[in-house]
Amino acid sequence: MPQLRSEETRERLLQAAAACFAEYGYEATGTAEICRQAGVSKGAFYHHFPTKQAVFLELLNRWLEGLEAQMTAAQAGAASAPDRLRAMAASAAPVFRDGGEGQMTLFLEFWSQAARDAQVRQAALAHYHRYRDDFAERVRAGQAEGSLGPADPSTVAHVIVSLAVGLLLQSLLDPHGADWGKVAQAGLDIVLNGLKPDQKGL
Amino acid sequence: MPQLRSEETRERLLQAAAACFAEYGYEATGTAEICRQAGVSKGAFYHHFPTKQAVFLELLNRWLEGLEAQMTAAQAGAASAPDRLRAMAASAAPVFRDGGEGQMTLFLEFWSQAARDAQVRQAALAHYHRYRDDFAERVRAGQAEGSLGPADPSTVAHVIVSLAVGLLLQSLLDPHGADWGKVAQAGLDIVLNGLKPDQKGL
Repeated sequence: MPQLRSEETRERLLQAAAACFAEYGYEATGTAEICRQAGVSKGAFYHHFPTKQAVFLELLNRWLEGLEAQMTAAQAGAASAPDRLRAMAASAAPVFRDGGEGQMTLFLEFWSQAARDAQVRQAALAHYHRYRDDFAERVRAGQAEGSLGPADPSTVAHVIVSLAVGLLLQSLLDPHGADWGKVAQAGLDIVLNGLKPDQKGL
Repeated sequence: MPQLRSEETRERLLQAAAACFAEYGYEATGTAEICRQAGVSKGAFYHHFPTKQAVFLELLNRWLEGLEAQMTAAQAGAASAPDRLRAMAASAAPVFRDGGEGQMTLFLEFWSQAARDAQVRQAALAHYHRYRDDFAERVRAGQAEGSLGPADPSTVAHVIVSLAVGLLLQSLLDPHGADWGKVAQAGLDIVLNGLKPDQKGL
């Protein structure tokens, strides 16, 4: 089963790379160390990935696409736009609650590297723009159905993404500082309360 | 004037270190490079700072204390808790608007290093806890004066800090993706609307 073995090798490389990036940082991690931890040859590495950056980007894409798919599935049965947003936040709550568990250190590496590397930045921004567009669309839907008031949908989407990103960061650095999953849901509730159709001055 | 020269040297070292950390990252920056950029001897460096970490922590403390002093000054004349919070957000708006201007790359280094280094983490968290306590106190004052409803002050403070941190990060990576200063003020307005005394379900 060479096909299966090839996929296993790829998976082992991704797991090893994630562990190395989280422990040593992206810059300090070499492909040799990734291969060593994966128990895989350099030849096998370059069969699967052209560069260390390519592994990094695949980890980023997987993580953010996985989170997006999970949130999309969670809101499927909800009756209104606010309920859909609440269901999404509830499904993402474990991400905040379990901050600091490896994945999160990797997440910080993505941001840090994005500040220095235009390709990583573009890849990260593409996801964030999709998240924002998706939230803005949900706000528009809420305005159309009358469950949300007339705030600028794009600004509201920026606010929601900012809240989520800030929660992620704090849950990583201060895992026991709060029940971050609860803060995430309370934060969205406050925002949705602030967007009720009878609110003034938005 | 040896005293003046000593302070100038210290200042030059801090400026050079900030530039190096922002450009190369904390890990990749050595004290030799900081001394070179500052035009200062190694002896002078160690006269002012015991370690590279000490320079880093002083930059972190300066930045967050400066921001705090600026926000405290801005809200002095405001008549109510919501107005005080709005005045603070308005005074911080340029920080978000000017994201990506060096200072912000350094800010990411603080987070990144805090994930790996317990001393940096403790220093960063001390500031964040003070910010949170301060916001919680303002929320309590708003509830006492009747301008804010009965939400949990500590949770609201976590939400406000999360919003600010997430905005900072996004403004760094996507400076032209939005008018981040405007998003900051709109975000706080939505939150304050959601906290009005007549809101239900908090």
